[in-house]
Amino acid sequence: MNAEIIAVGSEILLGQIVNTNAQFVAKRLADLGINVFHQSVVGDNPKRLTDAIKLADGRSDLVILLGGLGPTVDDLTKQTTAKYLGRELVIEQAALAKIERSFAETQRKMTENNRLQALYIAGSIPLPNETGFAVGDFYQNSNGSDFLLLPGPPSELRPMFVHQAQPLLEKNYFSQQLASRVMRFFGIGESLLASKLTDLIDQQTNPTLATYAKENEVTLRLTASADSQIHAREKLDKLEKTIQQRVGEFCYGYGDDNSLPQVVVKLLRKRQLTITAAESLTAGKFQATLADVPGVSEVFPGGFVTYANQVKSQLLKIPAESIQKNGVVSSATATAMAEQARKILHTNIGISFTGVAGPDELEGQPAGTVWIGLALKDQETQTKLFHFSKTRPYIRERTVLTGLDWIRKELLK
Amino acid sequence: MNAEIIAVGSEILLGQIVNTNAQFVAKRLADLGINVFHQSVVGDNPKRLTDAIKLADGRSDLVILLGGLGPTVDDLTKQTTAKYLGRELVIEQAALAKIERSFAETQRKMTENNRLQALYIAGSIPLPNETGFAVGDFYQNSNGSDFLLLPGPPSELRPMFVHQAQPLLEKNYFSQQLASRVMRFFGIGESLLASKLTDLIDQQTNPTLATYAKENEVTLRLTASADSQIHAREKLDKLEKTIQQRVGEFCYGYGDDNSLPQVVVKLLRKRQLTITAAESLTAGKFQATLADVPGVSEVFPGGFVTYANQVKSQLLKIPAESIQKNGVVSSATATAMAEQARKILHTNIGISFTGVAGPDELEGQPAGTVWIGLALKDQETQTKLFHFSKTRPYIRERTVLTGLDWIRKELLK
Repeated sequence: MNAEIIAVGSEILLGQIVNTNAQFVAKRLADLGINVFHQSVVGDNPKRLTDAIKLADGRSDLVILLGGLGPTVDDLTKQTTAKYLGRELVIEQAALAKIERSFAETQRKMTENNRLQALYIAGSIPLPNETGFAVGDFYQNSNGSDFLLLPGPPSELRPMFVHQAQPLLEKNYFSQQLASRVMRFFGIGESLLASKLTDLIDQQTNPTLATYAKENEVTLRLTASADSQIHAREKLDKLEKTIQQRVGEFCYGYGDDNSLPQVVVKLLRKRQLTITAAESLTAGKFQATLADVPGVSEVFPGGFVTYANQVKSQLLKIPAESIQKNGVVSSATATAMAEQARKILHTNIGISFTGVAGPDELEGQPAGTVWIGLALKDQETQTKLFHFSKTRPYIRERTVLTGLDWIRKELLK
Repeated sequence: MNAEIIAVGSEILLGQIVNTNAQFVAKRLADLGINVFHQSVVGDNPKRLTDAIKLADGRSDLVILLGGLGPTVDDLTKQTTAKYLGRELVIEQAALAKIERSFAETQRKMTENNRLQALYIAGSIPLPNETGFAVGDFYQNSNGSDFLLLPGPPSELRPMFVHQAQPLLEKNYFSQQLASRVMRFFGIGESLLASKLTDLIDQQTNPTLATYAKENEVTLRLTASADSQIHAREKLDKLEKTIQQRVGEFCYGYGDDNSLPQVVVKLLRKRQLTITAAESLTAGKFQATLADVPGVSEVFPGGFVTYANQVKSQLLKIPAESIQKNGVVSSATATAMAEQARKILHTNIGISFTGVAGPDELEGQPAGTVWIGLALKDQETQTKLFHFSKTRPYIRERTVLTGLDWIRKELLK
């Protein structure tokens, strides 16, 4: 089973946008076990699009076309594909009603072009668009490749692929039921994680196991197939247990749509613990990251950005002599910052960040030297020293995430 | 003149990485006035790569291959291209010496594979790699397409394209000298900007004018050709003057590698003015964004994250009754926050952010309602009301950038 991806759009050829759709679909297909040997991009040009379709039809079982389903004159993917296949385009009534309703509600005049978005290829399965108007299409071809047409905007393509197309692909190309699970890791690199799971990765057939690395985290996707969802999930449970035994300390959560701040805010809310921070090198980034999560106001009243030493003394009441004696990048200063922030704002937790963001060194310490302090009510304050490398943005980002992960572990104790 | 881009690498077909290289090269080619009608991706497979090269050779003047120049067994772009062209691979001595020196310095053992990175196609122009080891290649073909081979890591590809390949392309395909300029805009959308410059965009031939939109800003790239750099730059100056007259109030700076925080920190340092902030809905994001810029410590001592009302009272000494009477999302509260922050930390400028980040409304005001306050020493404090829409992350990001842009305009008065 092999599929081919053709993205349609002059804006990609001109380099105005990055082709993230191809990556999204390719990753999902890899998870499903469908091979992709070719990806291509063509502009909004019927001749060149027809050539690309013809080439793909000759070498792939499934041709996936991305984009060109919208209402403008440039959008001609459906028209070109239908013509190539010798099929008519017909109206999907529910989609047309949705478009008409939207125009009526906003009191705009609907043009003929808008109607075009409700068209699909006669004899195919129209795919509803949850977040937009253009209908998708899955066409099964008895004498050539099958065709899957998806809309260009990622906010429309992604839900349509996951909720509409993927179940159809599974049903049509696989007799088995698929289940998958994403595990998220922080504090372990991709190569170290892979080396600890080498035997599992090498032996994998069912479930399969794939690592994906971003700058500051690694995710592991487990995919199993079986005669039922329950049995597929049992296979995942068994594999996950082995993974948790080996690298569970680094696993902070599950799911594609999750993050360390989300997990930490959820834990704080569950345990009804409040938090504040005193930030030097991160200069507000820790608090801003926490506040990315809706509902944070229950557990986070505010905090301190103490970039200059004099502000550490003024706002946190840390004696200037103490900072001078111990150094600003020191365990003692991290302790004082975390404790004072916690005491002043009467929270359960106070965290502090002091270090060298770079590019220049500070107090003779190189960029990337960071002390984090963690003050918990009625407990002795702890501090830890880290040496992060690379660039200023990386050091500050890594510092924030390391602080979040420390709190997560503390809350799970 | 048309070029075709072929990215080589199974990690792109598997969706493990996004093909940002294709976008980077496509954008640069568009700026040069070189058409791109096809982009494709093939895996690390000599048969399929040869097929792709053959197809491209028949329809494009220049074939650009991205990736597959490295030291592993998967890297076979050079070998495959040379074979297709019927040419030998030869050693670039300076590149080999650089590789040998690096291995000697780090006391690692050099393998035969590492030598391969110094190979180039006999009869072509080898392109030095500033930031890595793999040599690039520009092959001029008298009986077919020309070939340009670039390394896969973006940190190697980008400087090699800009410093090595681009001058060769200009020299070989254009008799004229090119000059380009990037103007950066905030506070005006792409469609409004384009509509104010419609006549210039429609009439463009030389200089050309292209808009690029990101989520929160628009850039305009002007490219001119002439018989000398000086004359090309004169054309740019003339066009820029017209643009500045129409939309200059939204133009905050120049260059690909620039940003609103960089411009603001530069202005503050130049005028030796210090700044602090009191942040409610942005919760530290403004201060963290300022501190992305190295050297900010000269002008930014620190500030306040006052998420809860009680913390606004406690840290900023704003009477609780006043917040209750005026509302937290109000001009009066924004004024008090900006003024108090400035007074407490004795800075020249104090800025405040209070509003509704969403998703829920607050005090009966919808998500996106934002007051910004600006307190300047010895001047009356100003406030402005904004209504941003969309999501929580967008509202908070937009709030921060709007604050920065306001300060920029104030500093230029």
